[in-house]
Amino acid sequence: MLRDVAVVGVGQTSFGEHWERSFRDLFVTAGVRALEDAGVAGDEIDALYGGNMSAGQFIQQEHVAALIADYAGLATERVPATRVEAADASGGLAFRQAVLDVASGASDVVVASGVEKMTDLGSAETTEALAGSADREWEVFGGGNVAALYAMMARAHMDRYGTTRRQLSEVVVKNHENATNNKYAQYTNEVSAELVESTPFVSEPLRAFDCSPASDGAAAVIVVPAEDAEDYTDEPVYVEATEQASGSLAVHDRDDITTLGSTARAAERAYETANVSPGDVDVAEVHDSYTVAEILAVEDLGFAEKGDGGAFVEDGRAAVDGETPVNPSGGLKACGHPLGATGVRQVVDAAKQLRGEAGTQVEDASVAVTHNVGGTGATAVVNVLSDRNGRNRRSR
Amino acid sequence: MLRDVAVVGVGQTSFGEHWERSFRDLFVTAGVRALEDAGVAGDEIDALYGGNMSAGQFIQQEHVAALIADYAGLATERVPATRVEAADASGGLAFRQAVLDVASGASDVVVASGVEKMTDLGSAETTEALAGSADREWEVFGGGNVAALYAMMARAHMDRYGTTRRQLSEVVVKNHENATNNKYAQYTNEVSAELVESTPFVSEPLRAFDCSPASDGAAAVIVVPAEDAEDYTDEPVYVEATEQASGSLAVHDRDDITTLGSTARAAERAYETANVSPGDVDVAEVHDSYTVAEILAVEDLGFAEKGDGGAFVEDGRAAVDGETPVNPSGGLKACGHPLGATGVRQVVDAAKQLRGEAGTQVEDASVAVTHNVGGTGATAVVNVLSDRNGRNRRSR
Repeated sequence: MLRDVAVVGVGQTSFGEHWERSFRDLFVTAGVRALEDAGVAGDEIDALYGGNMSAGQFIQQEHVAALIADYAGLATERVPATRVEAADASGGLAFRQAVLDVASGASDVVVASGVEKMTDLGSAETTEALAGSADREWEVFGGGNVAALYAMMARAHMDRYGTTRRQLSEVVVKNHENATNNKYAQYTNEVSAELVESTPFVSEPLRAFDCSPASDGAAAVIVVPAEDAEDYTDEPVYVEATEQASGSLAVHDRDDITTLGSTARAAERAYETANVSPGDVDVAEVHDSYTVAEILAVEDLGFAEKGDGGAFVEDGRAAVDGETPVNPSGGLKACGHPLGATGVRQVVDAAKQLRGEAGTQVEDASVAVTHNVGGTGATAVVNVLSDRNGRNRRSR
Repeated sequence: MLRDVAVVGVGQTSFGEHWERSFRDLFVTAGVRALEDAGVAGDEIDALYGGNMSAGQFIQQEHVAALIADYAGLATERVPATRVEAADASGGLAFRQAVLDVASGASDVVVASGVEKMTDLGSAETTEALAGSADREWEVFGGGNVAALYAMMARAHMDRYGTTRRQLSEVVVKNHENATNNKYAQYTNEVSAELVESTPFVSEPLRAFDCSPASDGAAAVIVVPAEDAEDYTDEPVYVEATEQASGSLAVHDRDDITTLGSTARAAERAYETANVSPGDVDVAEVHDSYTVAEILAVEDLGFAEKGDGGAFVEDGRAAVDGETPVNPSGGLKACGHPLGATGVRQVVDAAKQLRGEAGTQVEDASVAVTHNVGGTGATAVVNVLSDRNGRNRRSR
């Protein structure tokens, strides 16, 4: 890109069931926290991006970036407000478009945000809305839903690579343990593998505790040109790469359902642009919407060999003190998963790791990856962030 | 912006009631036409933006940019596919984000597209979905809908400036006459002012023929770095400015409801960036979702003095041979208004004017403006396009 970009402020609401708060309230809280963190006033903002999957179905409201800009007091100014959507990768897109906006020279101080208010619908209606991330005509009309599609991927992975039910459970155990130190997480309780395996099947082999929950929440970050970053903070977080790739919307159109090609393609480009290898990554926030999705992610991001993702988690290599710590925040499973907010929340948590401020902190984290997926993988966004002064950066 | 951008290919479907075609089919037709026009193969595409307002409500499908990339054969490649939304300004956003993507240096050949499939719902459900562009909590729960909100603006404009019912009708007469030469238009019949005034009230003073119709359709354009444009076409169309601004989502939160502040702010910046004045504009495609919206647009874009917009149209100053020809395509009223497609369709038609290929052609058109509004004006996008060799450009 023609101009380097940095993150200079981050903020989020707690994720959970916010019966008492509206969509617009959630954004304002996260946005104000990000502005305060960056020491930026509202009238310094040049543009706003809002990731949101489905406010049309959840709260019958479209035009939501203009709505949140309005309630944040930005709408009477010139500020362009742009909603982006790619199912639950919407937050990842919002961050990426904010970076491109600054890189293009069009804007200097940009808010990337994500927000979703899911709990106004009942669970059957929520499942129906979520199915809008899959191919309605070819998958959903035939009886599929997102959990069922991931269950097929899990079955294929177990069949081909010997991945076990216990390995799926260990993703939950790790992520809940990590979230015990995250005050913004929806669940801060530890769970055992036995408990996970006692919960009802949602779609065999996936059980209730293999699935991220329905959540309300918002997250926001402030991005500026890298050359200006130190005017805002002593601890800028540099965007080394932000890459997005696509795959077929329908799972049955893929050559191989034990990999997300979109993740692999986005990661390959991101590593190349950032000039890092998977082994250089100190910490990763990955898209564990279902437990099997984390196993696919650690493989497709290159942390483990293909087929070895289950063992990678089970053997502690993804633990906070492991080879490549994955989801020290608690991930989507324990943080909660307000669809459009998640991709931005991952950047918030990655930035905290690089600043040394995380609840479950990875020691000497200098290079972070965030990984956000839409639906069953038709969209993936992979970002590489760094503090530009750590051990990995120096060695390159 | 750090890198200039040009449009090198355009395409669209006819707009209308396409009972026989799906959302994805519509995009593929428009996309292929744009690729053919640019002489570009699918594997040369670096990124795709898709403007769409409400596929979630119209066809229960989100994640629609990935869907159309998939059906266009782009998804198995690395191509990022990004949906953007700001109600019926979604197409304008898609174009602007495509321009920023190229300007940033991240991409070289980008598709900007818009698509909407509205006719799968009945008219009451369509009105309900459209109301998602307004403030659901404060306007729609109270009984408002988009037509009623524009009717209030019309009433206020009539009261303050003496705008007449006949002047509203003359917008329709002009736009239908212009569309008689547009093979892609939903309506190609002429109408009289008397006929307009015999149609039933939708929301007084606005009648059925003051309103753009519900439509299915898609449009697409190809953008590249300006320095590469002549590799693709002998008639590049240069993007002199693309600006977007916001206003309050709720009409009652505005100081003045006889102006769209978002349009005025976006236009001011666009003229400044492009280094043109409203008098330099040879042709404009503006957002006449309702007749009153065209009257507000010609004022807020600076073609007429505030309050003089009705007379500007009635006196023929907006005619194809007038002072500033407005909507020679037929506008939203006669072309049809497939929400997310419109902002891109406007660029298609403006490009044809600058290339001298339009049905109702403005003589020697060298500087064009397109103007796309979301809902009642919380979002506006204003683009300035030019051929960089016409009389206006030479005089600057």
